[in-house]
Amino acid sequence: MSIKEGDPILLYLTERKRWLVKVIKDSTMHTHKGFIELNNALDKEYGEGIKSSLGTTFWLLKPTMEDYVMKSARKTQIVYPKDMGIIAAKSGINSGSIVIESGTGSGVLTGFIANLVKPSGHVYSYEIREEFIEIAKKNLKRCGVLDFVTIKHCDVKEGMDVSNADLGIVDVGDPWSVIKTFRDSLKGSGMIVIICPTMNQVEKSVIELNEQGFISIETIEVITRNIESRIGITRPTNRMVGHTAYLVFGKKIIYSDKD
Amino acid sequence: MSIKEGDPILLYLTERKRWLVKVIKDSTMHTHKGFIELNNALDKEYGEGIKSSLGTTFWLLKPTMEDYVMKSARKTQIVYPKDMGIIAAKSGINSGSIVIESGTGSGVLTGFIANLVKPSGHVYSYEIREEFIEIAKKNLKRCGVLDFVTIKHCDVKEGMDVSNADLGIVDVGDPWSVIKTFRDSLKGSGMIVIICPTMNQVEKSVIELNEQGFISIETIEVITRNIESRIGITRPTNRMVGHTAYLVFGKKIIYSDKD
Amino acid sequence: MSIKEGDPILLYLTERKRWLVKVIKDSTMHTHKGFIELNNALDKEYGEGIKSSLGTTFWLLKPTMEDYVMKSARKTQIVYPKDMGIIAAKSGINSGSIVIESGTGSGVLTGFIANLVKPSGHVYSYEIREEFIEIAKKNLKRCGVLDFVTIKHCDVKEGMDVSNADLGIVDVGDPWSVIKTFRDSLKGSGMIVIICPTMNQVEKSVIELNEQGFISIETIEVITRNIESRIGITRPTNRMVGHTAYLVFGKKIIYSDKD
Amino acid sequence: MSIKEGDPILLYLTERKRWLVKVIKDSTMHTHKGFIELNNALDKEYGEGIKSSLGTTFWLLKPTMEDYVMKSARKTQIVYPKDMGIIAAKSGINSGSIVIESGTGSGVLTGFIANLVKPSGHVYSYEIREEFIEIAKKNLKRCGVLDFVTIKHCDVKEGMDVSNADLGIVDVGDPWSVIKTFRDSLKGSGMIVIICPTMNQVEKSVIELNEQGFISIETIEVITRNIESRIGITRPTNRMVGHTAYLVFGKKIIYSDKD
Repeated sequence: MSIKEGDPILLYLTERKRWLVKVIKDSTMHTHKGFIELNNALDKEYGEGIKSSLGTTFWLLKPTMEDYVMKSARKTQIVYPKDMGIIAAKSGINSGSIVIESGTGSGVLTGFIANLVKPSGHVYSYEIREEFIEIAKKNLKRCGVLDFVTIKHCDVKEGMDVSNADLGIVDVGDPWSVIKTFRDSLKGSGMIVIICPTMNQVEKSVIELNEQGFISIETIEVITRNIESRIGITRPTNRMVGHTAYLVFGKKIIYSDKD
Repeated sequence: MSIKEGDPILLYLTERKRWLVKVIKDSTMHTHKGFIELNNALDKEYGEGIKSSLGTTFWLLKPTMEDYVMKSARKTQIVYPKDMGIIAAKSGINSGSIVIESGTGSGVLTGFIANLVKPSGHVYSYEIREEFIEIAKKNLKRCGVLDFVTIKHCDVKEGMDVSNADLGIVDVGDPWSVIKTFRDSLKGSGMIVIICPTMNQVEKSVIELNEQGFISIETIEVITRNIESRIGITRPTNRMVGHTAYLVFGKKIIYSDKD
Repeated sequence: MSIKEGDPILLYLTERKRWLVKVIKDSTMHTHKGFIELNNALDKEYGEGIKSSLGTTFWLLKPTMEDYVMKSARKTQIVYPKDMGIIAAKSGINSGSIVIESGTGSGVLTGFIANLVKPSGHVYSYEIREEFIEIAKKNLKRCGVLDFVTIKHCDVKEGMDVSNADLGIVDVGDPWSVIKTFRDSLKGSGMIVIICPTMNQVEKSVIELNEQGFISIETIEVITRNIESRIGITRPTNRMVGHTAYLVFGKKIIYSDKD
Repeated sequence: MSIKEGDPILLYLTERKRWLVKVIKDSTMHTHKGFIELNNALDKEYGEGIKSSLGTTFWLLKPTMEDYVMKSARKTQIVYPKDMGIIAAKSGINSGSIVIESGTGSGVLTGFIANLVKPSGHVYSYEIREEFIEIAKKNLKRCGVLDFVTIKHCDVKEGMDVSNADLGIVDVGDPWSVIKTFRDSLKGSGMIVIICPTMNQVEKSVIELNEQGFISIETIEVITRNIESRIGITRPTNRMVGHTAYLVFGKKIIYSDKD
């Protein structure tokens, strides 16, 4: 599967110097290591290299979801791969899963989830702030999953027209206020995950989850450390991301008259 | 989709009291909260509850991959959901991906990956220790993904009969010795991830990755903290998992004569 | 300075097998590695070994404050060395410092602080729960610092009869209620540190510190990881302490009419 | 104890805007919030405020060891308060302790230790790189502990002319090469602490400690997280220090013929 016009590439020089671009015929990129003729990428395989005018090799990597995430246009705090990963691992969503989300934000988490549930699943994402919707659509289109996402411009507190969802993702400032709505759209035993930057949001969300009939409630913070490794000099890096968000998980139960 | 005979359920009382069982007609479970007739689970929806002989409600949850992972029969150190998640998030694997793995171990990570790549993808897993293969198959069957996994009983150092894999997972004691084999079976720009309990394994693996033509090499440790939250009393838990493994990631590049 | 009758020793076999005892003439200790005649420790130097009846060497270590801390009789959650350390480092207390504390609890932190401020400094420690005072005195006596501590059995909310303290340590369930009292007893620029197991205590304490004229307010959580190291196998330990307490620091300022 | 000419002050506006200065008569400081006449600080108490020409209050805090540490002139990676603290807590050093150190570096840790052992204790610090000695002396003088430190310009591998030290601090690139020398200068049961930025240094140091007759060997990494707290918005900060150094501790034992 060689690279064709219009294909996305991650042009890689070093971890800090990499560009997410589309291969456009006859276009040229200017870098501090010389010009790059993008025509040279055509018909190459992903993983091969092309040389700049100064003879430096740039590698043609196939962009991963993480590259799209970290390079996406954004107007909000994004959800990091570390947090996306644990959501995937705990929920067990896969091809065919139905996921509901509010809000869409920059669409970054939306895209990650859509990539996991496609082609037979779908993400229904609700966003009240109109200015985000165009950004989100652009980001989703870029990573090739727009067909598996329906973005709705409305206030999720008024209800969601989806039922029997496998997973609900809450990423709004007042998550406790939408938990009931999410409950109504989840199937029995379905999972909710609430993204809470602050401890206060965690506390209020856990209280509301208990009241709304969720069990197996668990709050997790995921922390990642990067390790620098060279011969004889292996150690964690000096700086690290300190905190992004707590993740509150719960599973919906269905009360009957007899409980 | 109501519960039928043979369906798996997670019978949930509390976070610490939960059982992963199959619904077998006329069978009875004995718990410290009374007998449970599993017939009562038939035709219920996941998420509903059934009562024990002492009147306690047990909830019928649908087991997630995490439940299978944490409840799986195991003879080895398992890979935790936190580590599985970041592998999913960084690699971007999804339905249709081809994944190679060595070794299979208890098949826990294998099952998680198979769940993500099914139905159109596949996992090829190599295991040299025969005694693990039966355990792995049992675990994979239990979580319903055995059809999407091929386990091969051979020494991966002698080569793998797979090519163009999207992701390679290395979970052996001497990972540096199999990196070349994995490289041969990965497609260009394909990702390798090496699971390293010790810093020494990280260092040797990073050296070998550099020599074998991998770039974008990154070593990550994922740490999770659980938060206890009740009204007015929110705090991290007293005990936590301290360390499982470092994860070393890299992407395969293809050298040509001109590089 | 050889070991005399009545001296404390840490009889050390392994990290998990060590006993904090006093050398009593003609007494015998029974261990799973044989009998130990404590007479054999007399006139030895700290650091030397004595043999049990089965020929196993036990080492005569001089107990450190940490040994007293970890081996102390306790009725409450204790403050860990990691947290004691940062209090010492940030406050800069040393010989001659005056420290106020509430409550005394088991006297473990009290002893650590007294050890730093002696011989010319002093700790005034307030405890409302009578049952703790005897435990605390016993612990302080054992580590040899009782002369440098005054324990007062009273409610600190009614005021402390100390002024110009260098450091105030608050370790009670409702720390915000005593901050004003501590302020009155601290000297200008003096430091307060509040030990808060929960986030909720942190939030309320920070609000009250701001209202009571403290600046340079900083909240820190100290986490320690232990590393296991053997040739070729170096890694963090599997289990770790997850959370003890947050520490909230502040410095007292003195308002005048003109501010 | 009011402020006199020559006294050090930490002029505090915010956590990010604070200056460590000496009160010099008739001198003026220029800030973005106006001029400050340092004469105004004379005869004030620490903790009081003075106004700039624009009417902004700057607070006159008494510098702590931490302020000296974080504001010290430095040519090397410094030891952070978190690491200093655990050394104090685990070693139990206090007024009267004898401490040996190599190398001196910028003298930052030296100053912290000297502050704890003064007035009756002493720090003997060895530094082979002459260019550091003047910096260290300047830093030690500024925080008022130069009298309690002897800096020696020599190679510690040739031996140290100190005996019976309570604590030895090793902060050099090849710590394993000086452990024997430190052992000779420590008293029985005395503690050594080795500051190791890398895992490789930890591994080699632990091996050498075992060979040189140290027990109770323990390797610790101290991590601190800062918490931001405002009403309803309490959370860890976004960025944090990722890693400074591992600390390897051990206690000297004395072998006799019979062991």
